[in-house]
Parts: sequence; C-alpha cells; structure tokens
Amino acid sequence: MALADLQDSTRNDDGIATAISILKQRFGEQLQTSQALREQHAHTTTYIPAQLPDAVVFARSTEEVQSVVRVCAEHKVPIIPFGTGTSLEGGVNAPAGGICIDLQQMDKVLAINTEDLDVTLQPGVTREALNVELRDKGMFFPIDPGANASLGGMAATRASGTNAVRYGTMRDNVINLTVVMPDGSVVKTANRARKSSAGYDLTRLMVGSEGTLGIITEMTLKLYGIPENISAGVCQFPSVDAACNTTIAAMQIGLPMARIELLDTLMVQAVNNYSKLGFAEAPMLMLEFHGTDAGVAEQTAMFNEIASEFGGSEITWVSSVEERNRLWKARHDAYPSMLAFRPGAQGIATDACVPISRLAECMAETVEDVERLGLVAPIVGHVGDGNFHVSPLVMMDDADEVARAEEMIERLNLRTIAMDGTCTGEHGIGQGKRRFLKLEHGTGVDVMAAIKRGIDPDNIMNPGKVVSL
Amino acid sequence: MALADLQDSTRNDDGIATAISILKQRFGEQLQTSQALREQHAHTTTYIPAQLPDAVVFARSTEEVQSVVRVCAEHKVPIIPFGTGTSLEGGVNAPAGGICIDLQQMDKVLAINTEDLDVTLQPGVTREALNVELRDKGMFFPIDPGANASLGGMAATRASGTNAVRYGTMRDNVINLTVVMPDGSVVKTANRARKSSAGYDLTRLMVGSEGTLGIITEMTLKLYGIPENISAGVCQFPSVDAACNTTIAAMQIGLPMARIELLDTLMVQAVNNYSKLGFAEAPMLMLEFHGTDAGVAEQTAMFNEIASEFGGSEITWVSSVEERNRLWKARHDAYPSMLAFRPGAQGIATDACVPISRLAECMAETVEDVERLGLVAPIVGHVGDGNFHVSPLVMMDDADEVARAEEMIERLNLRTIAMDGTCTGEHGIGQGKRRFLKLEHGTGVDVMAAIKRGIDPDNIMNPGKVVSL
Repeated sequence: MALADLQDSTRNDDGIATAISILKQRFGEQLQTSQALREQHAHTTTYIPAQLPDAVVFARSTEEVQSVVRVCAEHKVPIIPFGTGTSLEGGVNAPAGGICIDLQQMDKVLAINTEDLDVTLQPGVTREALNVELRDKGMFFPIDPGANASLGGMAATRASGTNAVRYGTMRDNVINLTVVMPDGSVVKTANRARKSSAGYDLTRLMVGSEGTLGIITEMTLKLYGIPENISAGVCQFPSVDAACNTTIAAMQIGLPMARIELLDTLMVQAVNNYSKLGFAEAPMLMLEFHGTDAGVAEQTAMFNEIASEFGGSEITWVSSVEERNRLWKARHDAYPSMLAFRPGAQGIATDACVPISRLAECMAETVEDVERLGLVAPIVGHVGDGNFHVSPLVMMDDADEVARAEEMIERLNLRTIAMDGTCTGEHGIGQGKRRFLKLEHGTGVDVMAAIKRGIDPDNIMNPGKVVSL
Repeated sequence: MALADLQDSTRNDDGIATAISILKQRFGEQLQTSQALREQHAHTTTYIPAQLPDAVVFARSTEEVQSVVRVCAEHKVPIIPFGTGTSLEGGVNAPAGGICIDLQQMDKVLAINTEDLDVTLQPGVTREALNVELRDKGMFFPIDPGANASLGGMAATRASGTNAVRYGTMRDNVINLTVVMPDGSVVKTANRARKSSAGYDLTRLMVGSEGTLGIITEMTLKLYGIPENISAGVCQFPSVDAACNTTIAAMQIGLPMARIELLDTLMVQAVNNYSKLGFAEAPMLMLEFHGTDAGVAEQTAMFNEIASEFGGSEITWVSSVEERNRLWKARHDAYPSMLAFRPGAQGIATDACVPISRLAECMAETVEDVERLGLVAPIVGHVGDGNFHVSPLVMMDDADEVARAEEMIERLNLRTIAMDGTCTGEHGIGQGKRRFLKLEHGTGVDVMAAIKRGIDPDNIMNPGKVVSL
C-alpha cells in the first residue's frame, strides 16, 4: 500500500496548449507559466509529491473565472482552483496538468449584514482578514482550521477546527455560494434565508466537493456576536484517557464549550519548545468558554467538577486577551512545532473522527500501534467532535520507518471506519484518502460518481480528487 | 396562473400492470389495490387534488423496499414513498400512477446511543413516538413540524417547525441515512461521526429530496439532553410589527430561545375558539426557553427588556407541564383552528422565509395585500427563522375569491424571493411550488435536474415532484 493514491492520468497536451494560447491572449500578465509560480501553486503541506499545473490564471471576478472555465470546457482541459494552498491531501495538485485558477485576488468583503448576522464575500478572503474586518462591528466568524486559509477553500474542503464543537463546521455556516459550473454557467445555490426546503441542497453539495463540481466565486456566511465573556485556560491530566473521558462527560451533559483541544505529552513538549511556553509535560486540554459572565461562571464550575473526577487539575486561566491569543497561536502552531521537534522529519497528517463514545478507545489503540511500531507521533485533537490528529514524524529516506508509518495510518483509518467514524473529519479526501473513501462509503461512492458525471461529464473540474470517473 | 403546477404525465400502463402482478405474487396481502386505500395514500392536506397510485405496498424492511424498487426499475414504474401523508405540497400524489410504498410499519427504534446522543431508527417512527421512547432516558428529539409526521418524511421534506430557531432543521439533525436508490442498490450516506469531510455530502443531498432520489429506510438522528429548565409563556403586543421587531432584536443579540412563535390577532381568535383558550385578541408571541435555572432566568429578563421597548407585555408564564403541553397543542392545532374559523373554506398553506431583517416589511406588505383583496388569512410564524405562514381561507367554489387568493400567493412568493428569501422555508416543493422553484433558483434548477438525471435516469422516483426531467 502506498501513502498516497495518485491517479494515473492521461494529459490532453493539445487541448492544454490551445487553451493556454487563447487564455494568454485574453488575460495577458494575469496568466503565468513560470516554473516557480507553477511549483508554488502545486505546493502541498504534506508528504504528497507536487504535480504542477501548466499555467496559473489570477482571476479577479466571477466573469473572469467563467471565461477561463468556458475555454477549458471547450478544449477539455483540467481546472484546479487555488485558495491559499493549505490543503493537506493534495487538493491543489494537477495530476493531468491543466489550468490553475488562483482566487487570492478575489478578496473583497462585499456586504456585512449586521441585522441578519451574515456576510457576503469573495472566496479569496482569509478567515483572519474577515475577522479583522468584523471586529469593530462586534461580530466574528468562528470557523478556525488553524491555517489562515481562504474562506472559499475552507468551504470547498468542509473545514472545521477548534471552534466546531460549539459553532459547527463550514457545512453549518455557509448560507449560499455562487459557483461557476463546469459548463461555464453561474449558479447561486440559495438566497439569504436561514432555512429553506426549496429543492436539493446545492449549498451543502458544493461545500466539501473540493472543487470537483465547480468553482466558488462568492459566498454568504453566518456571523455571530462576540460573546460578553470569553474565558480561556488549560487543564492538565494524568493521562490522555483521563482527558478524553473528561471531554466525553462534558459533551454528554451538553456543556456548550467553544473550544476543547487535547494535546498529548509529546505535543505539549513540542509546543513548549516552539512557542516558549512552560506547561507541565502532561496531557492537556486547552479550553475556551463563551457566554454571559454568569453563563461562563456556571459552565466552568461544571467543567471543573467533571475534570476533578478524572484527576484533572483546576482550570488555569489565561487572563488577558494577549495571553489568550498567545495560547491559541501556540495551538495553531502545532504543525511547525512538531516539525521542529524532530528536525528533518516530514509530518504526515491523519484525521480520524469517531462517535465520542469510542474516542478514548480509538486513541488508546492508536497509541499502542505508535509505540509498537517505534514511531514518533504527537497527538492533537478537536476532542469535543471526536476528531484527533496523530501525526507520525517520519524520516522519508528511511524506507523501514515509512513502511511502519504506513502500517500505523492504514490501521488507524480502518479502525476509525470500523468504529462507525470517518477517515477524515475535516481535511478532505483530495488525492491522499481516495482509497479510504471507498472503504468508508462503499456504494455511496457510486452515487458520488453519478453526481460528478451528471454535473461534470468531461471531468475537467479538479480531476483525480475525491471520486474517479 | 393555476395554484398547483401538476405535470402532465404519460402513464406506463403495461409496465404498471406487469409490476403489480409480480409484486402481488411476492407480497400477497402486503400489496393492496382497493380504491379506498389508494385514495388514502394520495390524501393531501391542502387544496391540491389527489392523484392516486395504482397499488400500495406495505414494506417492513430495507430488503422489501429494495425488492419493490428492483421490480419497478425493471419495468420503469413510478414509486411514491409514503410516511404519514402530511405533506402540504402534493408530495404523495402519483401523477403518472405507479406503486406507493407505505413505510409506516417500519416503525422500530433500533439503537439509542445515550453516550453519543444519537438514535438509529426506521423511517416510519413518528416524532411523538420517538419522544415517548426517549423520555425516561432524559433525552429528546427537538424537530417539531406540528403534525405527528414520520421521521423519514420529515427528513425527505427537510422539515423544521417551532424548535428550529434553536436546534436547527432536519438538515442539521440527520447524521446518516440508509437509502434504497433507484437502481435498487442500498447506500448508507455516512457513519455516526458528528462531522466528516469524506466526499460529497450525500446525507444533506437526500435530506429535502422529497423521495425523488431514493427511499429512506433507516436513519440516525442527533438527540439532546432534556434541559434542566423549560419555561414557556406568552407575550402580547400592540401590533404584528411590534412582535416582529421584538423577535428581530432578540435574535440579533443572540438570545438562544427554543421557540418563538408569532400569531396575529385573527389566529389568536381562531386558536381561542378551537382550543378554548382565553388570550386577549391581540398579536402574540408564544415562547419557550431552555437552559439551566440561572440561564433561563437571564434569558427571560433580557427578553422582557426587549419586548417592553416595543410595547409588549411581560411574559405570562404557564406553570405546569400540562399547561405547557396545552399551549403547544393549541399552537399545533393552528390548521384545524383556522378551518373551524371559516367553516366550508379550504386553507391554502404558504411558507415564506426571509432574512430576519426583512421579516416585518415582508409581513406588512403581505397583510396589505390580504386586506386589499378582501381575504381572510390568519398568520402564524416561526419568526425567529424569518419564516411565516399566511393561510388564505378560501371558498373554493367562489372563482373570484380563488383568483384573489392566487394573486396574493403569487405576490407573496415573488416578494419573498425578491427579499433574498425562499418560497418554502419548510414545506418543500412537491407539486405545488415547482414553478416558484424555477423563479427562485434559476440555473440552479438545471443542476438539480443534472443530479436527478445522474441518479434516477428513468425518473421512477416520485416523478413530477421538485424537478422535471
């Protein structure tokens, strides 16, 4: 078994050459073919080798995207949408070449509807840029995958992250999308009503479709009022199991925590080193509570009671906004922290997500594998969702170690699926998890293929990702 | 313009006769063709005339549904799934005849996962039956469309109702579905993890597809702990506008109300008469708050403060569980209350849902139309979602009155769409709203048709509903 399942693809060399010459004439300097730029646009954050597009077009409007798509549709040329390139599963690779459409210049916030708590924007706006724009309006957008990803990319991947336990994922927070379809038509998936029973849920179909059904060029997202009280802190535990069981108990009584993030001892060490923090070297939950003053006081009292039953410490609060930001920055820097922890190694992301009742068991069996196979693999997890990332740090030139990592990952994904969970809680399928999609969804993959065939019969939209035709 | 947009359909008489003879042999008494039974299975709750299926099969398992579908697929015979027959838009009509699959006997709760707060069940379980089963486990399923509908039907229609303002709709509360597809294959749309990025969101595609893509034969739903404190009451206002504006303000500060239902004066009169209540004849909000004792006290104090700014009364609480049940029973009986209010009239359901900032304006313009056109049309609304039902009570033998009702409804749906809303917040498209789906979704309807064509190329699944092929 190979780590990545890269599809063999036949290049349509003539079509690509023709499309580039037409687009070059139309887009001038907005189209680039330099090696450096093409490499940058096939950059992946993980171990998956880069596969370069033939050209990159920097689009500035829905009409420009439409124009590129029409040319590519006519000549049956692959199109790969690009946000910030933080995909973990090879989402921006171009296995059959083609045209990358870079959407980063479509970065305008178009309308903030304070009364309806929603915002309409272009897909190149990043989550951090959006929150800067919202701050003085007393609102925020909660979904936070760590990386400062583009919101279009986050929708395409059905991203989530630290706040999902309370605010849901991109699935729950996208109100509508404007999408350029494979035939060049433009579809708005819904209006701005908060609910609708009008036909098939095109919004949810596009969210998580990873650019394989169309290109998002505009979107409306839910916003939330900044809570009166935001309190963050950490709580340390004698074991990962104790931290898991505390999480499970807190979720089961319905405590509305805004963030509950697990770090195992190895990850605490890595974060301590990288972010110059001084946490005790023990499993830890990083926590955040949102609400009124009274509500947060009530939540935290209940949390402390549960944690103490499992041998957890009282919550150590971070008092200032700066300290809070520093805490979450350290959490977001988990990935570079890990890489710094074992210099020269490559981190291989995994993304198990199981029903919360199986979380402790799933993690314990995985840790057993890691130990048995002699791997170095820190764990960080959005444990309130039953989602955790165990990331083997692998010396890629050591074939034996790579094989051991492969075994661990294979067993993890199979274990997760067997426990009624998913091989990917938030990273997506891309190229990296196509094989596991089949194991997880069985006949469902045929339905996905029927949808793909119905909407993109020539397979020009981000081919080689999610489903095969 | 006609009220309903019933598709002209060509019957496949030979195929239907063959399928019935095969199925009769296989299913014996489980297959019925009596006029009375067929009429009962095409019963619609609204003005849309019944179109009968040729036979009804009472299915008892996924395998039996699969068996019926395979026969119908082979002979290209329409299949109409039936839950409790409470569709408001002709969802169970059989415009081209065919086989109705009655799922009411598939009424088993298969597994309650207390630790994961979820339940797996068959589609014929009704929401009331589920909540009776859950009560002694301290959990409940919140989605409540009023009618004691089957949960399969609620998923198929993307139903919501009074609790959606806090708990979301069926879109948000279905974890996975088992679906018999048009080719007879069985697909499980997801596992039990609370989130997933594994491929296209088949769960959300099936939710709201109204039986046109497949038949739901099993499902897993989210559950919630019964709150420590449930407080319900009513608040009366000098005008519908004041009640709307109170709702908007409460939503905007993020008050987590569990129910906030508007009744206009006419509806209060109708409910008073039908349910023997003695409310003042003035616009009213029926309210429910869920939380801890302290949390509910805090929420209600904030609500009272807002309501008083708009001239609302203090909340009048209902103190006992019996009184609370009586209050919500009265709300659920809005439809028979209206019919009793104007004996002999037919109630025509509408289902406008707009961004909440437009709610007061949308309702005011609609009331102007109702008055100008001399109609009797009480209003009830899930106003926290921006969703309201104004229901003209029409003497169907009075052509002039029917025409005036048509004008009002036409203008309402166009107004709703123009205000960035939807013509159906929760009832679905069925046959009744197909024309408005096109006005609302434009090119999106082509994508819906491409999906339908990809999954059900012979158009055997509930044909004539939602999209045309």
